[in-house]
Amino acid sequence: MTNRRLYDLAGAEPERRFSPYCWRTRLALAHKGLAVETVPWRFTEKAEIAASGQGLVPVLVDGDKWISDSWTIANYLEDTYPDAPSLFGGPAARSLTRYYSAFADSLVAAMFPFIALDILHHVADKDRDYFRESREKRVGKTLEAFVADRDSKLAAFRGSLAPLRTALKSQPFLGGAEPLYADYALFGPFQWARCISPFALLEEGDPVKLWRDKLLERFGGLARNAPAYDV
Amino acid sequence: MTNRRLYDLAGAEPERRFSPYCWRTRLALAHKGLAVETVPWRFTEKAEIAASGQGLVPVLVDGDKWISDSWTIANYLEDTYPDAPSLFGGPAARSLTRYYSAFADSLVAAMFPFIALDILHHVADKDRDYFRESREKRVGKTLEAFVADRDSKLAAFRGSLAPLRTALKSQPFLGGAEPLYADYALFGPFQWARCISPFALLEEGDPVKLWRDKLLERFGGLARNAPAYDV
Repeated sequence: MTNRRLYDLAGAEPERRFSPYCWRTRLALAHKGLAVETVPWRFTEKAEIAASGQGLVPVLVDGDKWISDSWTIANYLEDTYPDAPSLFGGPAARSLTRYYSAFADSLVAAMFPFIALDILHHVADKDRDYFRESREKRVGKTLEAFVADRDSKLAAFRGSLAPLRTALKSQPFLGGAEPLYADYALFGPFQWARCISPFALLEEGDPVKLWRDKLLERFGGLARNAPAYDV
Repeated sequence: MTNRRLYDLAGAEPERRFSPYCWRTRLALAHKGLAVETVPWRFTEKAEIAASGQGLVPVLVDGDKWISDSWTIANYLEDTYPDAPSLFGGPAARSLTRYYSAFADSLVAAMFPFIALDILHHVADKDRDYFRESREKRVGKTLEAFVADRDSKLAAFRGSLAPLRTALKSQPFLGGAEPLYADYALFGPFQWARCISPFALLEEGDPVKLWRDKLLERFGGLARNAPAYDV
Protein backbone atom coordinates (compact mmCIF):
# COMPACT_ATOMS: atom_id res chain seq x y z
CA MET A 1 0.00 0.00 0.00
CA THR A 2 1.22 3.45 -0.80
CA ASN A 3 -0.05 6.96 -0.31
CA ARG A 4 1.21 7.92 -3.78
CA ARG A 5 -0.71 7.68 -7.02
CA LEU A 6 -0.11 8.59 -10.64
CA TYR A 7 -2.87 9.36 -13.14
CA ASP A 8 -1.68 7.47 -16.18
CA LEU A 9 -3.20 7.71 -19.67
CA ALA A 10 -4.94 4.43 -20.58
CA GLY A 11 -6.67 3.09 -23.66
CA ALA A 12 -9.81 1.00 -24.05
CA GLU A 13 -7.92 -1.69 -22.13
CA PRO A 14 -7.11 -0.21 -18.71
CA GLU A 15 -3.68 -1.82 -18.76
CA ARG A 16 -2.63 -0.22 -22.08
CA ARG A 17 -0.77 2.88 -20.87
CA PHE A 18 0.43 5.10 -23.65
CA SER A 19 1.45 8.57 -22.59
CA PRO A 20 5.09 9.40 -23.46
CA TYR A 21 5.05 11.84 -20.56
CA CYS A 22 3.63 9.38 -18.03
CA TRP A 23 6.22 6.77 -18.98
CA ARG A 24 9.01 9.18 -18.10
CA THR A 25 7.46 9.69 -14.71
CA ARG A 26 6.95 5.99 -14.09
CA LEU A 27 10.62 5.29 -14.77
CA ALA A 28 11.63 8.28 -12.64
CA LEU A 29 9.60 6.94 -9.72
CA ALA A 30 11.14 3.50 -10.20
CA HIS A 31 14.65 5.03 -10.35
CA LYS A 32 13.95 6.72 -7.01
CA GLY A 33 12.66 3.43 -5.63
CA LEU A 34 9.29 4.99 -4.88
CA ALA A 35 6.18 2.81 -4.94
CA VAL A 36 3.19 4.23 -6.77
CA GLU A 37 -0.35 3.17 -7.57
CA THR A 38 -1.09 4.04 -11.18
CA VAL A 39 -4.67 5.06 -11.94
CA PRO A 40 -5.90 4.47 -15.51
CA TRP A 41 -7.11 7.82 -16.84
CA ARG A 42 -8.73 8.80 -20.13
CA PHE A 43 -8.34 12.03 -22.11
CA THR A 44 -11.86 13.18 -21.26
CA GLU A 45 -11.66 12.59 -17.52
CA LYS A 46 -10.58 16.14 -16.79
CA ALA A 47 -12.64 16.33 -13.60
CA GLU A 48 -10.60 13.60 -11.92
CA ILE A 49 -7.39 15.65 -12.09
CA ALA A 50 -8.93 19.09 -11.63
CA ALA A 51 -7.20 19.43 -8.26
CA SER A 52 -3.91 19.68 -10.19
CA GLY A 53 -5.11 22.95 -11.72
CA GLN A 54 -4.92 21.71 -15.31
CA GLY A 55 -6.14 18.89 -17.54
CA LEU A 56 -3.17 16.81 -18.70
CA VAL A 57 -1.33 13.80 -17.33
CA PRO A 58 0.98 12.84 -15.72
CA VAL A 59 -0.47 14.02 -12.45
CA LEU A 60 1.27 12.74 -9.35
CA VAL A 61 -0.50 12.81 -6.01
CA ASP A 62 2.06 12.44 -3.24
CA GLY A 63 0.34 12.50 0.13
CA ASP A 64 -1.67 15.71 -0.06
CA LYS A 65 0.36 17.29 -2.88
CA TRP A 66 -0.83 17.36 -6.50
CA ILE A 67 1.93 17.86 -9.05
CA SER A 68 1.57 18.01 -12.84
CA ASP A 69 3.94 18.34 -15.81
CA SER A 70 6.62 15.67 -16.19
CA TRP A 71 9.58 18.06 -15.82
CA THR A 72 8.07 19.61 -12.68
CA ILE A 73 7.42 16.14 -11.28
CA ALA A 74 11.01 15.04 -11.94
CA ASN A 75 12.34 18.08 -10.09
CA TYR A 76 9.85 17.55 -7.27
CA LEU A 77 10.99 13.95 -6.85
CA GLU A 78 14.66 14.92 -6.89
CA ASP A 79 14.17 17.65 -4.28
CA THR A 80 11.71 15.78 -2.07
CA TYR A 81 13.66 12.50 -1.99
CA PRO A 82 17.31 13.63 -2.01
CA ASP A 83 18.55 10.44 -0.34
CA ALA A 84 17.18 8.23 -3.11
CA PRO A 85 19.37 7.74 -6.23
CA SER A 86 19.69 11.01 -8.11
CA LEU A 87 17.59 11.38 -11.27
CA PHE A 88 19.96 13.94 -12.72
CA GLY A 89 23.45 13.27 -11.39
CA GLY A 90 24.19 16.65 -9.82
CA PRO A 91 23.31 20.34 -10.29
CA ALA A 92 25.05 20.83 -13.64
CA ALA A 93 23.57 17.59 -14.93
CA ARG A 94 20.10 18.76 -13.85
CA SER A 95 20.50 21.91 -15.92
CA LEU A 96 21.80 19.89 -18.88
CA THR A 97 18.76 17.61 -18.61
CA ARG A 98 16.33 20.50 -19.24
CA TYR A 99 17.14 20.40 -22.94
CA TYR A 100 16.69 16.62 -23.12
CA SER A 101 13.17 17.01 -21.76
CA ALA A 102 12.33 19.55 -24.47
CA PHE A 103 14.02 17.40 -27.12
CA ALA A 104 11.89 14.44 -26.02
CA ASP A 105 8.76 16.55 -26.46
CA SER A 106 9.85 17.30 -30.01
CA LEU A 107 10.27 13.55 -30.61
CA VAL A 108 6.63 13.02 -29.70
CA ALA A 109 5.71 15.47 -32.46
CA ALA A 110 8.15 13.80 -34.86
CA MET A 111 6.67 10.34 -34.23
CA PHE A 112 3.04 11.40 -34.41
CA PRO A 113 2.82 11.27 -38.24
CA PHE A 114 3.63 7.55 -38.04
CA ILE A 115 1.36 6.38 -35.24
CA ALA A 116 -1.51 8.88 -35.10
CA LEU A 117 -4.10 6.52 -36.59
CA ASP A 118 -2.91 3.57 -34.52
CA ILE A 119 -3.58 5.58 -31.38
CA LEU A 120 -7.19 6.02 -32.45
CA HIS A 121 -7.56 2.23 -32.60
CA HIS A 122 -6.65 1.93 -28.93
CA VAL A 123 -8.26 4.88 -27.17
CA ALA A 124 -11.31 4.26 -24.98
CA ASP A 125 -14.67 4.57 -26.74
CA LYS A 126 -15.53 7.71 -24.85
CA ASP A 127 -12.24 9.32 -25.94
CA ARG A 128 -12.52 8.57 -29.67
CA ASP A 129 -14.35 11.69 -30.77
CA TYR A 130 -12.21 13.90 -28.56
CA PHE A 131 -9.00 12.37 -29.86
CA ARG A 132 -9.96 12.49 -33.54
CA GLU A 133 -11.33 16.03 -33.44
CA SER A 134 -8.54 17.58 -31.39
CA ARG A 135 -5.75 15.90 -33.37
CA GLU A 136 -7.28 16.46 -36.79
CA LYS A 137 -7.70 20.12 -35.95
CA ARG A 138 -4.02 20.22 -34.95
CA VAL A 139 -2.66 18.55 -38.09
CA GLY A 140 -5.18 20.05 -40.52
CA LYS A 141 -6.31 16.78 -42.13
CA THR A 142 -7.93 13.46 -41.30
CA LEU A 143 -5.78 11.03 -39.34
CA GLU A 144 -6.09 8.61 -42.25
CA ALA A 145 -4.65 11.18 -44.67
CA PHE A 146 -2.05 12.24 -42.12
CA VAL A 147 -0.43 8.79 -41.90
CA ALA A 148 -1.01 7.72 -45.52
CA ASP A 149 2.52 8.56 -46.68
CA ARG A 150 4.32 7.52 -43.52
CA ASP A 151 6.57 4.98 -45.24
CA SER A 152 8.10 7.71 -47.35
CA LYS A 153 8.94 9.74 -44.23
CA LEU A 154 10.65 6.95 -42.33
CA ALA A 155 14.19 7.41 -43.66
CA ALA A 156 14.15 11.10 -42.73
CA PHE A 157 12.88 10.33 -39.23
CA ARG A 158 15.55 7.72 -38.65
CA GLY A 159 18.16 10.09 -40.06
CA SER A 160 17.09 12.79 -37.62
CA LEU A 161 18.19 10.53 -34.76
CA ALA A 162 21.82 10.63 -35.93
CA PRO A 163 23.15 12.71 -32.99
CA LEU A 164 21.43 10.41 -30.51
CA ARG A 165 22.93 7.44 -32.35
CA THR A 166 26.40 8.97 -32.17
CA ALA A 167 26.15 9.48 -28.42
CA LEU A 168 24.78 5.98 -27.82
CA LYS A 169 27.56 4.39 -29.85
CA SER A 170 30.11 5.66 -27.36
CA GLN A 171 28.31 4.98 -24.07
CA PRO A 172 25.50 2.65 -22.89
CA PHE A 173 23.14 5.42 -21.77
CA LEU A 174 22.90 9.18 -22.21
CA GLY A 175 23.65 9.45 -18.50
CA GLY A 176 26.74 7.23 -18.87
CA ALA A 177 27.13 3.66 -17.63
CA GLU A 178 23.70 3.81 -15.98
CA PRO A 179 20.54 5.61 -17.10
CA LEU A 180 19.41 8.97 -15.73
CA TYR A 181 16.30 11.06 -16.23
CA ALA A 182 17.61 12.24 -19.62
CA ASP A 183 17.33 8.61 -20.74
CA TYR A 184 13.83 8.21 -19.32
CA ALA A 185 12.68 11.47 -20.91
CA LEU A 186 13.76 10.31 -24.36
CA PHE A 187 12.62 6.74 -23.79
CA GLY A 188 9.06 7.96 -23.17
CA PRO A 189 8.22 8.66 -26.84
CA PHE A 190 9.67 5.32 -27.98
CA GLN A 191 7.68 3.43 -25.36
CA TRP A 192 4.56 5.42 -26.27
CA ALA A 193 4.96 4.34 -29.90
CA ARG A 194 5.42 0.65 -29.17
CA CYS A 195 2.51 0.57 -26.70
CA ILE A 196 0.14 1.77 -29.37
CA SER A 197 1.48 0.95 -32.81
CA PRO A 198 2.93 -2.04 -34.71
CA PHE A 199 4.86 0.39 -36.94
CA ALA A 200 8.62 -0.22 -36.69
CA LEU A 201 10.10 3.24 -36.13
CA LEU A 202 13.55 1.83 -35.36
CA GLU A 203 15.63 -0.54 -37.40
CA GLU A 204 17.11 -3.75 -36.02
CA GLY A 205 20.72 -3.15 -34.99
CA ASP A 206 20.26 0.60 -34.58
CA PRO A 207 22.14 1.71 -31.42
CA VAL A 208 19.04 3.73 -30.54
CA LYS A 209 16.97 0.55 -30.58
CA LEU A 210 19.58 -1.30 -28.52
CA TRP A 211 19.47 1.50 -25.96
CA ARG A 212 15.66 1.44 -25.93
CA ASP A 213 15.68 -2.31 -25.44
CA LYS A 214 18.01 -2.01 -22.44
CA LEU A 215 15.61 0.47 -20.86
CA LEU A 216 12.70 -1.91 -21.44
CA GLU A 217 14.36 -4.37 -19.09
CA ARG A 218 15.09 -1.94 -16.26
CA PHE A 219 13.23 -2.11 -12.94
CA GLY A 220 12.20 -5.71 -13.43
CA GLY A 221 11.00 -5.15 -16.97
CA LEU A 222 8.60 -2.36 -16.00
CA ALA A 223 8.28 -1.12 -19.58
CA ARG A 224 8.79 -4.53 -21.24
CA ASN A 225 5.92 -6.10 -19.32
CA ALA A 226 3.37 -3.46 -20.31
CA PRO A 227 0.92 -4.28 -23.13
CA ALA A 228 2.73 -3.26 -26.32
CA TYR A 229 3.74 -4.38 -29.80
CA ASP A 230 6.96 -6.30 -30.34
CA VAL A 231 8.68 -3.66 -32.50
CA MET B 1 54.44 32.99 -23.78
CA THR B 2 52.92 29.57 -23.68
CA ASN B 3 53.94 26.10 -24.65
CA ARG B 4 50.42 25.43 -25.99
CA ARG B 5 49.16 26.05 -29.50
CA LEU B 6 45.98 25.44 -31.42
CA TYR B 7 45.77 25.02 -35.18
CA ASP B 8 42.74 27.14 -36.02
CA LEU B 9 41.03 27.30 -39.40
CA ALA B 10 41.59 30.73 -41.02
CA GLY B 11 40.38 32.44 -44.18
CA ALA B 12 42.19 34.68 -46.64
CA GLU B 13 42.56 37.10 -43.72
CA PRO B 14 44.62 35.28 -41.08
CA GLU B 15 42.45 36.72 -38.30
CA ARG B 16 39.16 35.40 -39.74
CA ARG B 17 38.76 32.12 -37.85
CA PHE B 18 35.76 30.11 -38.89
CA SER B 19 35.77 26.51 -37.77
CA PRO B 20 32.75 25.62 -35.61
CA TYR B 21 34.90 22.91 -34.03
CA CYS B 22 37.85 25.19 -33.29
CA TRP B 23 35.58 27.76 -31.65
CA ARG B 24 34.38 25.15 -29.17
CA THR B 25 37.96 24.40 -28.27
CA ARG B 26 38.92 28.06 -27.92
CA LEU B 27 36.09 28.65 -25.46
CA ALA B 28 36.95 25.44 -23.63
CA LEU B 29 40.56 26.59 -23.21
CA ALA B 30 39.35 29.99 -22.01
CA HIS B 31 36.93 28.32 -19.55
CA LYS B 32 39.86 26.38 -18.14
CA GLY B 33 41.91 29.57 -17.95
CA LEU B 34 44.58 28.08 -20.22
CA ALA B 35 46.58 30.39 -22.44
CA VAL B 36 47.03 29.29 -26.03
CA GLU B 37 48.72 30.55 -29.15
CA THR B 38 46.38 30.08 -32.10
CA VAL B 39 48.02 29.27 -35.40
CA PRO B 40 46.10 30.25 -38.56
CA TRP B 41 45.69 27.09 -40.64
CA ARG B 42 44.16 26.51 -44.06
CA PHE B 43 42.24 23.47 -45.32
CA THR B 44 45.07 22.40 -47.60
CA GLU B 45 47.86 22.61 -45.02
CA LYS B 46 47.57 18.97 -44.06
CA ALA B 47 51.32 18.57 -43.63
CA GLU B 48 51.44 21.04 -40.76
CA ILE B 49 49.19 18.87 -38.60
CA ALA B 50 50.36 15.47 -39.81
CA ALA B 51 51.83 14.76 -36.37
CA SER B 52 48.25 14.53 -35.08
CA GLY B 53 47.69 11.49 -37.29
CA GLN B 54 44.85 13.06 -39.28
CA GLY B 55 44.04 16.11 -41.38
CA LEU B 56 41.35 18.15 -39.63
CA VAL B 57 41.37 20.96 -37.07
CA PRO B 58 41.17 21.65 -34.19
CA VAL B 59 44.56 20.23 -33.35
CA LEU B 60 45.90 21.14 -29.92
CA VAL B 61 49.59 20.83 -29.18
CA ASP B 62 50.10 20.84 -25.42
CA GLY B 63 53.80 20.54 -24.62
CA ASP B 64 54.79 17.44 -26.58
CA LYS B 65 51.25 16.05 -26.96
CA TRP B 66 49.23 16.36 -30.16
CA ILE B 67 45.47 15.99 -29.70
CA SER B 68 42.78 16.21 -32.39
CA ASP B 69 38.96 16.05 -32.47
CA SER B 70 37.09 18.62 -30.41
CA TRP B 71 35.38 16.08 -28.11
CA THR B 72 38.68 14.32 -27.44
CA ILE B 73 40.34 17.66 -26.73
CA ALA B 74 37.58 18.67 -24.29
CA ASN B 75 38.03 15.41 -22.37
CA TYR B 76 41.80 15.79 -22.46
CA LEU B 77 41.57 19.29 -20.97
CA GLU B 78 39.15 18.17 -18.26
CA ASP B 79 41.34 15.22 -17.25
CA THR B 80 44.70 16.99 -17.57
CA TYR B 81 43.66 20.15 -15.72
CA PRO B 82 41.28 18.88 -13.02
CA ASP B 83 41.92 21.85 -10.72
CA ALA B 84 40.77 24.37 -13.33
CA PRO B 85 36.98 25.05 -13.56
CA SER B 86 35.18 21.95 -14.82
CA LEU B 87 34.08 21.97 -18.45
CA PHE B 88 31.33 19.44 -17.80
CA GLY B 89 30.16 19.84 -14.19
CA GLY B 90 30.77 16.30 -12.95
CA PRO B 91 30.79 12.73 -14.27
CA ALA B 92 27.08 12.47 -15.09
CA ALA B 93 27.17 15.88 -16.74
CA ARG B 94 30.16 14.76 -18.84
CA SER B 95 28.18 11.80 -20.13
CA LEU B 96 25.17 14.03 -20.80
CA THR B 97 27.41 16.40 -22.76
CA ARG B 98 28.33 13.71 -25.30
CA TYR B 99 24.98 14.10 -27.02
CA TYR B 100 25.31 17.90 -27.11
CA SER B 101 28.57 17.53 -29.00
CA ALA B 102 26.90 15.32 -31.61
CA PHE B 103 23.88 17.61 -31.77
CA ALA B 104 26.22 20.55 -32.44
CA ASP B 105 27.78 18.62 -35.32
CA SER B 106 24.32 18.16 -36.81
CA LEU B 107 23.76 21.93 -36.51
CA VAL B 108 26.80 22.51 -38.69
CA ALA B 109 25.15 20.40 -41.38
CA ALA B 110 21.81 22.16 -40.85
CA MET B 111 23.39 25.62 -41.27
CA PHE B 112 25.54 24.74 -44.27
CA PRO B 113 22.72 25.24 -46.86
CA PHE B 114 22.53 28.88 -45.75
CA ILE B 115 26.18 29.89 -45.62
CA ALA B 116 28.02 27.52 -47.99
CA LEU B 117 28.62 30.12 -50.69
CA ASP B 118 29.60 32.81 -48.19
CA ILE B 119 32.35 30.54 -46.91
CA LEU B 120 33.81 30.36 -50.41
CA HIS B 121 34.10 34.15 -50.42
CA HIS B 122 36.35 34.07 -47.38
CA VAL B 123 38.61 31.05 -47.78
CA ALA B 124 42.24 31.59 -48.69
CA ASP B 125 43.02 31.61 -52.41
CA LYS B 126 44.91 28.35 -52.18
CA ASP B 127 41.89 26.69 -50.50
CA ARG B 128 39.21 27.81 -52.99
CA ASP B 129 39.40 24.89 -55.40
CA TYR B 130 39.65 22.38 -52.56
CA PHE B 131 36.68 23.88 -50.76
CA ARG B 132 34.45 24.16 -53.84
CA GLU B 133 35.25 20.71 -55.16
CA SER B 134 34.97 18.82 -51.87
CA ARG B 135 31.74 20.57 -50.81
CA GLU B 136 30.05 20.39 -54.22
CA LYS B 137 30.81 16.69 -54.33
CA ARG B 138 29.24 16.33 -50.88
CA VAL B 139 26.02 18.23 -51.67
CA GLY B 140 25.69 17.08 -55.29
CA LYS B 141 25.30 20.54 -56.87
CA THR B 142 27.14 23.83 -57.27
CA LEU B 143 27.39 25.95 -54.14
CA GLU B 144 25.45 28.66 -55.98
CA ALA B 145 22.56 26.27 -56.65
CA PHE B 146 22.80 24.87 -53.14
CA VAL B 147 22.10 28.20 -51.43
CA ALA B 148 19.73 29.64 -54.06
CA ASP B 149 16.55 28.76 -52.16
CA ARG B 150 17.89 29.41 -48.67
CA ASP B 151 15.25 32.00 -47.78
CA SER B 152 12.52 29.41 -48.20
CA LYS B 153 14.29 27.07 -45.78
CA LEU B 154 14.79 29.59 -43.00
CA ALA B 155 11.50 29.10 -41.15
CA ALA B 156 12.06 25.34 -40.96
CA PHE B 157 15.60 25.83 -39.65
CA ARG B 158 14.46 28.26 -36.98
CA GLY B 159 11.61 25.91 -36.08
CA SER B 160 14.05 23.05 -35.62
CA LEU B 161 15.66 24.98 -32.76
CA ALA B 162 12.44 24.83 -30.70
CA PRO B 163 13.75 22.43 -28.02
CA LEU B 164 16.86 24.57 -27.56
CA ARG B 165 14.63 27.63 -27.29
CA THR B 166 12.48 25.93 -24.65
CA ALA B 167 15.51 25.09 -22.51
CA LEU B 168 17.00 28.57 -22.87
CA LYS B 169 13.74 30.23 -21.86
CA SER B 170 13.97 28.62 -18.44
CA GLN B 171 17.67 29.06 -17.69
CA PRO B 172 20.48 31.40 -18.88
CA PHE B 173 22.72 28.63 -20.25
CA LEU B 174 22.36 24.94 -21.07
CA GLY B 175 24.74 24.31 -18.18
CA GLY B 176 22.59 26.42 -15.82
CA ALA B 177 23.45 29.83 -14.41
CA GLU B 178 26.90 29.69 -16.03
CA PRO B 179 27.97 28.13 -19.33
CA LEU B 180 29.59 24.72 -19.64
CA TYR B 181 31.09 22.80 -22.54
CA ALA B 182 27.59 21.90 -23.79
CA ASP B 183 27.07 25.61 -24.38
CA TYR B 184 30.40 26.02 -26.14
CA ALA B 185 29.78 22.99 -28.34
CA LEU B 186 26.48 24.43 -29.58
CA PHE B 187 27.82 27.97 -29.76
CA GLY B 188 30.49 26.84 -32.23
CA PRO B 189 28.17 26.53 -35.25
CA PHE B 190 26.53 29.89 -34.54
CA GLN B 191 29.90 31.61 -34.25
CA TRP B 192 31.10 29.85 -37.41
CA ALA B 193 28.10 31.25 -39.29
CA ARG B 194 28.53 34.84 -38.12
CA CYS B 195 32.28 34.81 -38.81
CA ILE B 196 31.69 33.98 -42.43
CA SER B 197 28.22 35.06 -43.49
CA PRO B 198 25.98 38.14 -43.28
CA PHE B 199 22.92 35.86 -43.45
CA ALA B 200 20.75 36.28 -40.33
CA LEU B 201 20.08 32.73 -39.17
CA LEU B 202 18.54 33.89 -35.89
CA GLU B 203 15.75 36.37 -35.38
CA GLU B 204 16.02 39.36 -33.05
CA GLY B 205 14.49 38.51 -29.69
CA ASP B 206 14.92 34.75 -30.12
CA PRO B 207 16.10 33.28 -26.79
CA VAL B 208 18.66 31.31 -28.80
CA LYS B 209 20.10 34.57 -30.12
CA LEU B 210 20.11 36.12 -26.63
CA TRP B 211 22.03 33.08 -25.37
CA ARG B 212 24.47 33.31 -28.28
CA ASP B 213 25.01 37.00 -27.61
CA LYS B 214 25.81 36.31 -23.95
CA LEU B 215 28.44 33.80 -25.03
CA LEU B 216 29.96 36.34 -27.42
CA GLU B 217 30.82 38.51 -24.41
CA ARG B 218 32.42 35.79 -22.29
CA PHE B 219 36.16 35.74 -21.62
CA GLY B 220 36.62 39.41 -22.36
CA GLY B 221 34.63 39.23 -25.59
CA LEU B 222 36.79 36.47 -27.08
CA ALA B 223 34.16 35.59 -29.71
CA ARG B 224 32.72 39.11 -30.03
CA ASN B 225 36.10 40.61 -30.89
CA ALA B 226 36.84 38.20 -33.72
CA PRO B 227 36.28 39.37 -37.32
CA ALA B 228 32.61 38.58 -38.03
CA TYR B 229 29.34 39.97 -39.34
CA ASP B 230 26.96 41.80 -37.05
CA VAL B 231 24.10 39.31 -37.32
